[in-house]
Amino acid sequence: MEYRKINHQDKDEEPEVDLEISRGGTVNNVAALGEILGGKTQWKRKSLVTFALTVLTSSQAILIVWSKRAGKYEYSVTTANFLVETLKCALSLAALLRIWRKDGINEDNRLHTTVEEIIVYPIPALLYLVKNLLQYYIFAYVDAPGYQILKNLNIISTGVLYRIILKKRLSEVQWAAFILLCAGCTTAQLKSNSDRVLETSLQGWVMAIVMALLSGFAGVYTEAIIKKRPQRNINVQNFYLYVFGMIFNAAAIMIQDFDAVVNKGFFHGYTSVTVLMIVNHALSGIAVSMVMKYADNIVKVYSTSVAMILTAIVSVFLFQFHLSLAFFLGTTVVSVSVYLHSIGKLQR
Amino acid sequence: MEYRKINHQDKDEEPEVDLEISRGGTVNNVAALGEILGGKTQWKRKSLVTFALTVLTSSQAILIVWSKRAGKYEYSVTTANFLVETLKCALSLAALLRIWRKDGINEDNRLHTTVEEIIVYPIPALLYLVKNLLQYYIFAYVDAPGYQILKNLNIISTGVLYRIILKKRLSEVQWAAFILLCAGCTTAQLKSNSDRVLETSLQGWVMAIVMALLSGFAGVYTEAIIKKRPQRNINVQNFYLYVFGMIFNAAAIMIQDFDAVVNKGFFHGYTSVTVLMIVNHALSGIAVSMVMKYADNIVKVYSTSVAMILTAIVSVFLFQFHLSLAFFLGTTVVSVSVYLHSIGKLQR
Repeated sequence: MEYRKINHQDKDEEPEVDLEISRGGTVNNVAALGEILGGKTQWKRKSLVTFALTVLTSSQAILIVWSKRAGKYEYSVTTANFLVETLKCALSLAALLRIWRKDGINEDNRLHTTVEEIIVYPIPALLYLVKNLLQYYIFAYVDAPGYQILKNLNIISTGVLYRIILKKRLSEVQWAAFILLCAGCTTAQLKSNSDRVLETSLQGWVMAIVMALLSGFAGVYTEAIIKKRPQRNINVQNFYLYVFGMIFNAAAIMIQDFDAVVNKGFFHGYTSVTVLMIVNHALSGIAVSMVMKYADNIVKVYSTSVAMILTAIVSVFLFQFHLSLAFFLGTTVVSVSVYLHSIGKLQR
Repeated sequence: MEYRKINHQDKDEEPEVDLEISRGGTVNNVAALGEILGGKTQWKRKSLVTFALTVLTSSQAILIVWSKRAGKYEYSVTTANFLVETLKCALSLAALLRIWRKDGINEDNRLHTTVEEIIVYPIPALLYLVKNLLQYYIFAYVDAPGYQILKNLNIISTGVLYRIILKKRLSEVQWAAFILLCAGCTTAQLKSNSDRVLETSLQGWVMAIVMALLSGFAGVYTEAIIKKRPQRNINVQNFYLYVFGMIFNAAAIMIQDFDAVVNKGFFHGYTSVTVLMIVNHALSGIAVSMVMKYADNIVKVYSTSVAMILTAIVSVFLFQFHLSLAFFLGTTVVSVSVYLHSIGKLQR
């Protein structure tokens, strides 16, 4: 499989190349030097997109808390989601225009496509739509804090589907780290009423597991689509992902908020915070695609988990949040997990 | 150092020997076969004492809960501690008598000793005495559930002192596992009011850390004493440890419970549960010594942590305890820690 080969190159060979540089090995061949510099660039790009995703995800959660403090959501969430997809689409097109002006149009960066290439792009958008619709029903069985905890099942489902669908292997230490990531994130979110989660009915559990599988599958499937054509420009790939995102989110407006939009207008209840949130979600979305292209879903999961911790720490200063002992313990476990994941890779 | 050499043999070479057997390697030498069978026996003995310690520690905690349910402690704890030491002493002597009858008295199993050998034995008993006395004062700063949580600092202090004093190394994965063991045990013990621990005053923290260091040091020092003379019979070593335990616990009776013993009698308030607890503590104490001899402090810490989990699970059936989400998450982290510790060893 094409995407497997590329990813293998991306992930496994870089550290060795970096090691060679740091050891000051004798590089007496221009081709080898080029390869090393290429590896270094790839590593830098991977770190950059991961860092961007972490910062954007943290600020995203902080914006949500901020907007909640300012009052309830007065705007239709579906219209905001549609605008997020539209903005992502526009940004991808803008990036493409720049590239076309600089490098000219070629086979890798042209928008022209085949049915065979495009046929898979609606699938992730459709999966997310189903997941978001299910979200409205799960609250009949689980309360909001309980749902926050059950959402951590995402971590496990992503790991399992990553293994099954992308056929990429994690070492034993990395699997252990992944279980710890899930346990640590959940521990950090424990509140005095968290035990209620254990009383979730069978329907609630089934829905939570189905939603975790849908979201894990959408993530892993997106990675498969993007990595399948490694030469294809990421902005073209993003453009197609987001066009279908726009289409399915337009459908969601019709299903859920048609009356509100017709009666109160498309932009009813929008504030400057709403606009900031839309911009932030759009940039985070692009960062996620970049992480899929240059890293993988595992990096994405770690990045968003670390963002969750960062958000809580920043919230202490911004909103006088109280950090619990559970948060401290969860953070310790997540930190050890990140460490184990990184050393687990070298031992493969 | 003598004890290092022996321990190294104990820990690192056995798994390889075991591996050879399971792979069905060609063993064409009687000496090699003897060594392998010896390794197998050592491994069996190590597993047996670890298993015994785990079961005894779990049942110990269950007996404590049971005796508390039946009412408050009516007896003097110091007299019970003294009887525990006395019983351990008697059991060691009984074991020695059997050995003398069977093998005769030799250099390794005779009670006769030198000043140089015996001079170190009072130290662990003295350290435990200081720690137990401090325990009375720490409750001015921390409540009982808070103290249960702070006691997990023991795990970290044991690991650090094990590294510094016994100069034995843990792999990176094993260190990570050790931090996880501490975080997992604490998580499993979280209660709705556990956050109060974070408000512990500086004095409380200092005392908790000093107590953790005292108890860690006592454990590691005992291992050093026992391993320093690997040929010496463990029952002789135990006999000396417990004789000094008796002496220092007699001192504790004088300091703390002199009046109660004089006025109400030595055995006031004893019930059949008290007797069971004394027998259990004595057997656990002997199991700890055996683990120090045939395994090490790290195994001891894991064994008692796993016992904590087992106790809680058994308590669900015995006392209708409610298992919290925190307990489930803590148990997951402890289990992963045990797994990582075991695979961390092989990768050294």
